Amino acid sequence: MNNGVVADVGTMPLAAWAGSLKRSALNERLMATSDRDLISFALGFPAAELFPTAAIAHALQQALSSNTQTLQYGAPSARLKEHIIEIMKRRGVQSSVDEVHLTSGAQQGLSLLARLFLDAGGDVVTEQASYPGFQQVLQMHSCRVSTVRTDLQTGFDVDELAQLLARGVRPRLLYVMTEHHNPLGVSVSYEKRARLGELVRRYGVPVIEDDAYGFLSYEGDPLPPLKVFAPEWVCYVGSFSKILAPALRTGWAILPRELALPFSVLKFASDLDSCSLGQRVISVLLDGWNLWSHVEDLRREYRARRDAMLSALVRLDRLGARWTTPRGGVFVWVELPHGTDTATLLTQAVQHERVAFIPGEAFASSSAVVLAHCLRLNFSHTSVDRIHEGIRRLSVLLDRAAPSPACFDGISREVAQETSGP
Amino acid sequence: MNNGVVADVGTMPLAAWAGSLKRSALNERLMATSDRDLISFALGFPAAELFPTAAIAHALQQALSSNTQTLQYGAPSARLKEHIIEIMKRRGVQSSVDEVHLTSGAQQGLSLLARLFLDAGGDVVTEQASYPGFQQVLQMHSCRVSTVRTDLQTGFDVDELAQLLARGVRPRLLYVMTEHHNPLGVSVSYEKRARLGELVRRYGVPVIEDDAYGFLSYEGDPLPPLKVFAPEWVCYVGSFSKILAPALRTGWAILPRELALPFSVLKFASDLDSCSLGQRVISVLLDGWNLWSHVEDLRREYRARRDAMLSALVRLDRLGARWTTPRGGVFVWVELPHGTDTATLLTQAVQHERVAFIPGEAFASSSAVVLAHCLRLNFSHTSVDRIHEGIRRLSVLLDRAAPSPACFDGISREVAQETSGP
Repeated sequence: MNNGVVADVGTMPLAAWAGSLKRSALNERLMATSDRDLISFALGFPAAELFPTAAIAHALQQALSSNTQTLQYGAPSARLKEHIIEIMKRRGVQSSVDEVHLTSGAQQGLSLLARLFLDAGGDVVTEQASYPGFQQVLQMHSCRVSTVRTDLQTGFDVDELAQLLARGVRPRLLYVMTEHHNPLGVSVSYEKRARLGELVRRYGVPVIEDDAYGFLSYEGDPLPPLKVFAPEWVCYVGSFSKILAPALRTGWAILPRELALPFSVLKFASDLDSCSLGQRVISVLLDGWNLWSHVEDLRREYRARRDAMLSALVRLDRLGARWTTPRGGVFVWVELPHGTDTATLLTQAVQHERVAFIPGEAFASSSAVVLAHCLRLNFSHTSVDRIHEGIRRLSVLLDRAAPSPACFDGISREVAQETSGP
Repeated sequence: MNNGVVADVGTMPLAAWAGSLKRSALNERLMATSDRDLISFALGFPAAELFPTAAIAHALQQALSSNTQTLQYGAPSARLKEHIIEIMKRRGVQSSVDEVHLTSGAQQGLSLLARLFLDAGGDVVTEQASYPGFQQVLQMHSCRVSTVRTDLQTGFDVDELAQLLARGVRPRLLYVMTEHHNPLGVSVSYEKRARLGELVRRYGVPVIEDDAYGFLSYEGDPLPPLKVFAPEWVCYVGSFSKILAPALRTGWAILPRELALPFSVLKFASDLDSCSLGQRVISVLLDGWNLWSHVEDLRREYRARRDAMLSALVRLDRLGARWTTPRGGVFVWVELPHGTDTATLLTQAVQHERVAFIPGEAFASSSAVVLAHCLRLNFSHTSVDRIHEGIRRLSVLLDRAAPSPACFDGISREVAQETSGP
């Protein structure tokens, strides 16, 4: 049978990027088995006990009993798009039905937009610390990634972007999370949003604005998204995952009108339609249920959890740790003294103290960015009591692991690893 | 604000393929409004009245009440993969959990596999008439498409593929639908499957085997899929859309083990997880419900609808029409005399006779393939009575539209259009 023309066994010829793929740390954690003793600050999960399960169950029954086409193929839900237009008004965004696109969560919005803008390669600008799910998308494109710093008070470094643009870099795409940044927990100041909007308009830079956490503000209303400042250049990406339930796999994108045809054809070719049942159930649910009262409940509880985490973190003060104070979202970013290796710490944390986080290096947008001394903590998925206990465990761990203060800066990774011990 | 560096307005620079995109005819039909008077043989929809709605509703309630994590993020359902391994045994395919991947319907399987194999371009082989959803996927890749003929009795022309390979063409991907072909309604003979399997092993050709209709056989069990003949080269793609319900958006792929990492990373980057609620509900459903008894019900009803269509089509005999006799699936392929323009006919069919189909040219895999005199009829979505009435309407239309028999061959499209009138 094998006449020697080509080997009968062998490796399949795959896309070039497939050879260098790695699973993201987030992915690994998501795959990990659950363990009730472990206090996990790792993943950005919402609190399952706050899901409006009864309302969703009721909406499911209603959708199934009132419409014989609920389980059938169909076009993206026009009714749900109308609901999203109303939802976006709360963020100060005016949109029409031909600008609203339904996706499988925010992640599919990121992935499809990257394909639209990056299939021919080119420059991409992201922040130094950024969402690993978008970095994973970039892995599949042969693009050059430039990074800009993020100020932990005012967000995205607009000056650094301006310098890149002035030097002649012409990004095919800019990725930014203006509100409640993942992983940093910082929001971009109003003044910076305005300047960023001006820059992208002036240089014609397409932008993905990832607003997955935009509706989870704990100190008054959030600022208007970048979409408001440069509507013709900003592709806004939102999601029901954090304000309703992730398993419905329903998100949305508000896109400049010129993208409507290519985006919808690409979306259709990708999977015909996002979880159709999810769309239809959310649509029925929003017809007769108060989303904003639910979001207010989420805000109240998540605010309490954030406050618990911030007050517990004071334990780490004497260890030289610093952390952000998020106005919303679900993450606090912690910087430990330079020389600390949080990837090594994680192993010990899980094994010895039964507490988990994501090491900073999982968020580094390029190999040149050093975040090994940082870590991300989630507070939405853990009760107030367990947050206190978890941070206590973390401080015990850090106490044992800490090098002497004199070694904090400039210490080599090897020494840090030895010092922190097994 | 606009200092003239770059225009403040303008077209966004998109991927090259975005400029030449067209919606598929199927897509347009899917978007079209429903009209109760219209008898539509157009789309490949399953019969909504046969959905196991009560069982699905019950499984939804059970999934929501028995597990607090049903609405949460999570890894692809391991339990559902086990069910799929059992389901695949019915097709003669032995697989293990690391070979099974969950997708958003079969479409996402096609789309992700194309990205794995075609990102660097290269040759693709498909049949002359083929599923438009896969053609749409190919639109997003700069690949060369070679087509092979399909025999309407025995399927895929393996000799023609052998000649292509002997001439030195080395496809990076071969796309084939061995069972109940869409749009042709033909299945590949056992002998041809064996030879095709031998060829792809010998030349090392990665294959997508699209088996969306594989479980809908009306004359005994289907033949084993190509996957059985060349397991290390065939990526098998299946779906619950036709045997359960499309809105759950759940399909699967059985892949060679070496693809497990790149495929799962690509899948995760695309949308994190396919309709998680859909997966969990199907999993709970299959735990305590007889899928095969349901599939037997589908087969019985669809067989009756196929038989009704085949017997009604005898009306078209005297018009010189020929059609396929499918052993399963949901489509009959009709060839009208050359010179007939089914795209023009469709407009008249919908406007004057309230009957719809998909014109053959929607399935042409390249511009060199002429299928303008053909059309595809679906029989799964229409009751027996309405099938008879719909074919009667079609025959009235064709009667009026038919050129004189002497003109049948070699007639120009312009003449045919004039003859068929408004």
